[in-house]
Amino acid sequence: MIGQLLEEIAGIGRDPGTGGYNRFTYDEADTQLREWFADTAGAKGLEVHADRNGNLWAVRGPGPWIATGSHLDSVPNGGAFDGPLGIASAFAALDLMEPTVDVAVVAFAEEEGARFGVPCLGSRLLTGKVDAAQARQLVDHGGTTLAEAMARAGHDPDQIGTDPDWLAGISFFLELHIEQGRGLVDLGAPLGLGESIWPHGRWRLEFPGQADHAGTTRMEDRDDAVVRFARTVLAVSDGLSGSSSRATFGRLQVEPNGTNAIPSRVIAWLDARAQDEGNLAKIIDSLPDGSSVANESFSPAVAFDTTLSDQVSALLGHPPPLPTAAGHDAGVLASHVPTGMIFVRNPTGVSHSPAEWADPDDCQAGVVALAKVLSSL
Amino acid sequence: MIGQLLEEIAGIGRDPGTGGYNRFTYDEADTQLREWFADTAGAKGLEVHADRNGNLWAVRGPGPWIATGSHLDSVPNGGAFDGPLGIASAFAALDLMEPTVDVAVVAFAEEEGARFGVPCLGSRLLTGKVDAAQARQLVDHGGTTLAEAMARAGHDPDQIGTDPDWLAGISFFLELHIEQGRGLVDLGAPLGLGESIWPHGRWRLEFPGQADHAGTTRMEDRDDAVVRFARTVLAVSDGLSGSSSRATFGRLQVEPNGTNAIPSRVIAWLDARAQDEGNLAKIIDSLPDGSSVANESFSPAVAFDTTLSDQVSALLGHPPPLPTAAGHDAGVLASHVPTGMIFVRNPTGVSHSPAEWADPDDCQAGVVALAKVLSSL
Repeated sequence: MIGQLLEEIAGIGRDPGTGGYNRFTYDEADTQLREWFADTAGAKGLEVHADRNGNLWAVRGPGPWIATGSHLDSVPNGGAFDGPLGIASAFAALDLMEPTVDVAVVAFAEEEGARFGVPCLGSRLLTGKVDAAQARQLVDHGGTTLAEAMARAGHDPDQIGTDPDWLAGISFFLELHIEQGRGLVDLGAPLGLGESIWPHGRWRLEFPGQADHAGTTRMEDRDDAVVRFARTVLAVSDGLSGSSSRATFGRLQVEPNGTNAIPSRVIAWLDARAQDEGNLAKIIDSLPDGSSVANESFSPAVAFDTTLSDQVSALLGHPPPLPTAAGHDAGVLASHVPTGMIFVRNPTGVSHSPAEWADPDDCQAGVVALAKVLSSL
Repeated sequence: MIGQLLEEIAGIGRDPGTGGYNRFTYDEADTQLREWFADTAGAKGLEVHADRNGNLWAVRGPGPWIATGSHLDSVPNGGAFDGPLGIASAFAALDLMEPTVDVAVVAFAEEEGARFGVPCLGSRLLTGKVDAAQARQLVDHGGTTLAEAMARAGHDPDQIGTDPDWLAGISFFLELHIEQGRGLVDLGAPLGLGESIWPHGRWRLEFPGQADHAGTTRMEDRDDAVVRFARTVLAVSDGLSGSSSRATFGRLQVEPNGTNAIPSRVIAWLDARAQDEGNLAKIIDSLPDGSSVANESFSPAVAFDTTLSDQVSALLGHPPPLPTAAGHDAGVLASHVPTGMIFVRNPTGVSHSPAEWADPDDCQAGVVALAKVLSSL
């Protein structure tokens, strides 16, 4: 059943060349996935609502609901499991449960931040962690604002913002997600329980330069933004050698980006994570001179609800607890409702890549665990 | 007159935000410039022909012609003078000359290589220095091939290739160009004569990496294409300290280019130049491991025709001779027809930038010099 659900969406947003997925909030692939979500929920007798922030909810009963779900969007050229596994598993779990439980299956918008730059945007807006007016002005790579994209997708951008009434309808939230490392492989366990999320954030670095001719300008006379950028990359990368902290420059913009023009500007986005906020601050404090630095998003450390975790752990025969350095909507919701996570083993540990994979047996174990927990709490 | 001609095209392809120019071969701005070229030539009684490679020629008389001109395309966010000054000066010079001289004014296509990656593409095709079949398959940033772009612009891409008949009609070629350095400023001279062009080329470097999650992958487990790239940039840049050779990584492509995804591939274009081919080879030989390297274009050292240079020098009162590290169509033509260059002083030395500038008096001096040489040879 879980395999069939994943198969139904396997072709949506898939790059036939790489096998990777490009599913960006409110684009064509995302719209198709949202239709699949509504159709699947409808077939199971659930009512589908979009909340004020473009998150989709499929609910059964008047509530309060026990909520589960994840997200449908992907990073560029991402994998098939990061996000959709949690939603497909939720739908599959419904078939194993009595129809008397009031449940909500949620698909949070823009979890990856791949289109508008702010990860977990849908859950952050819902919980008031992002200013609505600023969010409306977020732009994608093509200059389209969130407000424009929402309006085209049939959502009213004037309505976005914190929604305490909706949150009050949720008794707890449990997110099932593929593991994004090799923790469970090393432990030989198909499932794990989320224990905490590392503090993490995104910073926008702008490196200045002087546009000039690549041939006629002497090396000692030039101010090359790409050289400034390269110095920072190596200072950060080499500086973290032997540390558990992580820093990545995954997204770049070079201007004017001509082969024979010295770069006049590089904008680079730094993704940084650490076990605690002190170590995270160290990464930012140690950035060498050479750029301006602006924080674009920050997620403090999250410890999931221990009462809920203890209950889930007992129900599932005490699967191993896992800290994670990946952000999740569950981490955003954790300060508003009791929240937990179930991780499914990833045999390669690779994620955000077409190589991301989960074994069908492990996926089925996740569905069974989810059904058990949702039925029993 | 030269000021008025430049003013007529000052608004074409200009970014109102930066003041820089985006004029890419066969795009809308380039098409408008070509219309201006044809109109201006027509008003002066010249006949306009496009040759088989999309270069525009405005000719007077049956030939053989003394040819002059330059190019209309720009680098991204380039200056107003690099290219158009040579063409506008040619038209302005006609007004100072007897109408009995058989002249040709040329606008070479894709001199900067900003759209299809091969600089001096129009003159290289004309002289058989680029394979026509390969050229037809060159693609721009959006995936459009040269063949498609030519066809849309009304040129038959099947016709491109070496054109000895056309070349046989040219008795010599003299290109006027803004200087792209501070040689003439330092010498206090408004004009200089091209003496030689440094050997130079473009190389495409491809850095591999392993796509993975930016948060969950330990620093020691990752293979990050941006880090590989940064090591090469600094090795090259630091390695050229104190040398007259030049190397620039001006154009980059990062995949998948997502903030929370470890880069799986960086493609970077290296522009390298040196006083002689031995020093140029040293730059490429010293590239550290970490990428594949493919040459995309190579221009050997050019020494301009000394007989022609001596004549021009005598006519103009012996302006200073200048070597240049910038490539020009004149350098490409030099192995086929006697060729020379006149440089106009650039008070800042800055070029390939909105800050590029030439003083009106110096521009006028260039026009007068051009008219004198074209009339006397």
